[in-house]
Amino acid sequence: MAESLRIDLNCDLGESFGRYELGQDAAMMAVISSANVACGFHAGDPDVMARTVGLAKENGVALGAHPGFPDLQGLGRRLMRMTPEEIAHAVCYQVGALAAFASVVGMKLSHVKPHGALYNLAAQDAPVARVIARVVFSYDPRLILVGLAGSELIRMGKEVGCQVAAEGFPDRAYLPNGQLMPRTQPGAVITEPEAVADNALRLVTEGIVINDENIRVDTLCLHGDNPHAVGNARAVRHRLESVGVEIAHLKHG
Amino acid sequence: MAESLRIDLNCDLGESFGRYELGQDAAMMAVISSANVACGFHAGDPDVMARTVGLAKENGVALGAHPGFPDLQGLGRRLMRMTPEEIAHAVCYQVGALAAFASVVGMKLSHVKPHGALYNLAAQDAPVARVIARVVFSYDPRLILVGLAGSELIRMGKEVGCQVAAEGFPDRAYLPNGQLMPRTQPGAVITEPEAVADNALRLVTEGIVINDENIRVDTLCLHGDNPHAVGNARAVRHRLESVGVEIAHLKHG
Amino acid sequence: MAESLRIDLNCDLGESFGRYELGQDAAMMAVISSANVACGFHAGDPDVMARTVGLAKENGVALGAHPGFPDLQGLGRRLMRMTPEEIAHAVCYQVGALAAFASVVGMKLSHVKPHGALYNLAAQDAPVARVIARVVFSYDPRLILVGLAGSELIRMGKEVGCQVAAEGFPDRAYLPNGQLMPRTQPGAVITEPEAVADNALRLVTEGIVINDENIRVDTLCLHGDNPHAVGNARAVRHRLESVGVEIAHLKHG
Amino acid sequence: MAESLRIDLNCDLGESFGRYELGQDAAMMAVISSANVACGFHAGDPDVMARTVGLAKENGVALGAHPGFPDLQGLGRRLMRMTPEEIAHAVCYQVGALAAFASVVGMKLSHVKPHGALYNLAAQDAPVARVIARVVFSYDPRLILVGLAGSELIRMGKEVGCQVAAEGFPDRAYLPNGQLMPRTQPGAVITEPEAVADNALRLVTEGIVINDENIRVDTLCLHGDNPHAVGNARAVRHRLESVGVEIAHLKHG
Repeated sequence: MAESLRIDLNCDLGESFGRYELGQDAAMMAVISSANVACGFHAGDPDVMARTVGLAKENGVALGAHPGFPDLQGLGRRLMRMTPEEIAHAVCYQVGALAAFASVVGMKLSHVKPHGALYNLAAQDAPVARVIARVVFSYDPRLILVGLAGSELIRMGKEVGCQVAAEGFPDRAYLPNGQLMPRTQPGAVITEPEAVADNALRLVTEGIVINDENIRVDTLCLHGDNPHAVGNARAVRHRLESVGVEIAHLKHG
Repeated sequence: MAESLRIDLNCDLGESFGRYELGQDAAMMAVISSANVACGFHAGDPDVMARTVGLAKENGVALGAHPGFPDLQGLGRRLMRMTPEEIAHAVCYQVGALAAFASVVGMKLSHVKPHGALYNLAAQDAPVARVIARVVFSYDPRLILVGLAGSELIRMGKEVGCQVAAEGFPDRAYLPNGQLMPRTQPGAVITEPEAVADNALRLVTEGIVINDENIRVDTLCLHGDNPHAVGNARAVRHRLESVGVEIAHLKHG
Repeated sequence: MAESLRIDLNCDLGESFGRYELGQDAAMMAVISSANVACGFHAGDPDVMARTVGLAKENGVALGAHPGFPDLQGLGRRLMRMTPEEIAHAVCYQVGALAAFASVVGMKLSHVKPHGALYNLAAQDAPVARVIARVVFSYDPRLILVGLAGSELIRMGKEVGCQVAAEGFPDRAYLPNGQLMPRTQPGAVITEPEAVADNALRLVTEGIVINDENIRVDTLCLHGDNPHAVGNARAVRHRLESVGVEIAHLKHG
Repeated sequence: MAESLRIDLNCDLGESFGRYELGQDAAMMAVISSANVACGFHAGDPDVMARTVGLAKENGVALGAHPGFPDLQGLGRRLMRMTPEEIAHAVCYQVGALAAFASVVGMKLSHVKPHGALYNLAAQDAPVARVIARVVFSYDPRLILVGLAGSELIRMGKEVGCQVAAEGFPDRAYLPNGQLMPRTQPGAVITEPEAVADNALRLVTEGIVINDENIRVDTLCLHGDNPHAVGNARAVRHRLESVGVEIAHLKHG
């Protein structure tokens, strides 16, 4: 394997709320290079955000905003029919809120990655993808927009002038068109650590095959909110490092 | 009157929410020099914030964040027993959210002024005042902290190193200790435009008398959410300008 | 005209929230026979609900619950992809909450009518219509389920055993399939009082023509949240009464 | 020990929210006789409420509403300065919402017990206690009002005509005036199962000593949200049953 191979490992964190604990943030921080931090709409609250930003700083992990639909009860996984403009404003609000916590501890946001139903919508809906890209670019052109490899969000991000990063999911099955198989289908979620690690390595070396084309992947999403999460994440990191892949933050152009 | 007299005129704006309209933002923007914009906790939402920031830009009005308690139903006027740390995080979140909308249109926030019950608490509670001052300073030392003239917030703001601006209320009666007379007391709110204008001029020339000491006032709060609002605001501006007082943004040191 | 003709006139009320006022509830209460009261999810709050129930009692107006999606910012007009079971629970919660305010003043709820995006969804989506009908019937089989004439909600309501009432909209244009023309299309909303009154009379005497069939209408929806609202409502009531149509509550079987 | 001794064992349940799990509801349901179910303001949501009511029915556990302040982030433990009237409406709303879920499965609510900061406020603030008692009585005079033994809520409940039940806390230390020692003080919370069981038995046989007077206790609160919860609850139940105390629902007069 060429020694120049590098990949970012990201995880959705900061999803606790008030007294409600979710995710294994401390353990995951030790494995990943980038954290996508919930911004109070679908998960997280100002106290959790402050704590999560602090954890990221301690662990040298890059910080990204993880904006979602305003639906705490549904954890942002339920589509809401908002207009593109409403979505752009909701993203702007959440990114700014997180950026303030970063700023207070002397950090800057590195990236923005939409969450849950908004992630899926932005992967397929060009007008939504465009407004998200535009608002992120207008807010700070140095921010990297993270989206599903081969998605509308990546396409629109490039068109708008954003730096983009294509994401792959080592613990998810893909459809031939590059979309994720819905969680409701059997086999959609892969739980066995070695299988996840195999997928991770393949995503790094080959990218994702979409309609017979290999699409490069810049960052791998490691889930942090299930019983297998930390084990899988460590298996991925170990496998990648064992073959010489460098785990590193997304690069700003 | 010395021609060097200047004052900032501020107003709490952006208090609409969804389909709910509150305040006469467009009319007030033409009269004031600084807008305190609600940040989604006690009033406002991302769409309203975007609109209000746009209005401020069109009118050459300076933008400030107006963070409050997370209580939309009470419009932030009901005290919540949050810890100082929780309050600091809530302020950080809201300031950052508004800052993002400013940034998107190429503006920067000029100031931060707590809202309603949080304003009153920060005027009297030193630990709360201190954490607010600290988080504002940590976020951006150029932000001006606006508080009641003679309050703990002004005192702590100075101690922490913030730029501060002392606020006076031409349409409110004061207690001898410099606190505002509670709205529930008769005579607490002054509605006659000429009386408000008289008070405004006196506040500019003499400041507020607190325990027999004259305290300088840097900015006057003009209310925008009652039937007299626009008339009073215009009366104030006209009176001040007629005697040569310059209406101008708060000055950054 | 046969003197036996009767119709219920309903209006969506109680849509204020905290300090935010919406609608002309007091004026509308004098014109209608049934009020659909917002239950705190898309509009309304416990204080507004208590006030609205009091107004209904004073005016001899029948009380109905008006449950919607949990989306205050969107006033319940944005579709949320909730499961049928989640929708049933949200309806149950809201109906019970309003029933308590009715009970405290010695009233009982007469009906349930879904609001906004939930109304439209229940008109077309059979599984959603079925769970709403079931939960309303399980909660209280005497409650009348109000839905768009010719809709799935009416069909499922009957199937489940609910009493149902078919609703018509004198100020809205219809599509040939009996659905309301979307508000975004020109001509969808009728604002001229006499035209609205004409439609109202036709709806009472002829019902709605859906795919060439005349569907009877039991209740007319009078909007209460626009500048024409009260004038239109009075025009409708006057026209109907002038030809001998009796305005009366929905009848419980 | 006289064989006539009986006590109700209650626990605060249904405090999960969306994907956030809190408490060990299934295990606690097997130990208690009455459940106080969160109603969506400080915890719980419509789906959780439906699930919790179902669990109570399966376990033959009596259902009570557990209304709190509208503060999910603070789990209802932060005081909010609402007017007594606002509090009454908030209680009415929540009680009605839960009653609907009970009704749907053929149950009736047995009791109402305020939660957290509202419980403490109602224990000491007579006007608040009075409006809560009044609204509960107006809603349904058969509902039993549960409050701290010796509290204003019990006193006002009796004055208003409510059935009342005095509550004791076997895992909490008391102040000489009958109030609970604040959790922030050392020794306020008792975690050792045998000590909790000892306290439980003493509360049943002797009641609480308030200013040298023995106040009878009708129900014991067993906490369900800490690591010791289930163990302590079982220890209490076992101790009481071993000496012949009957564990039974609150009795309606």
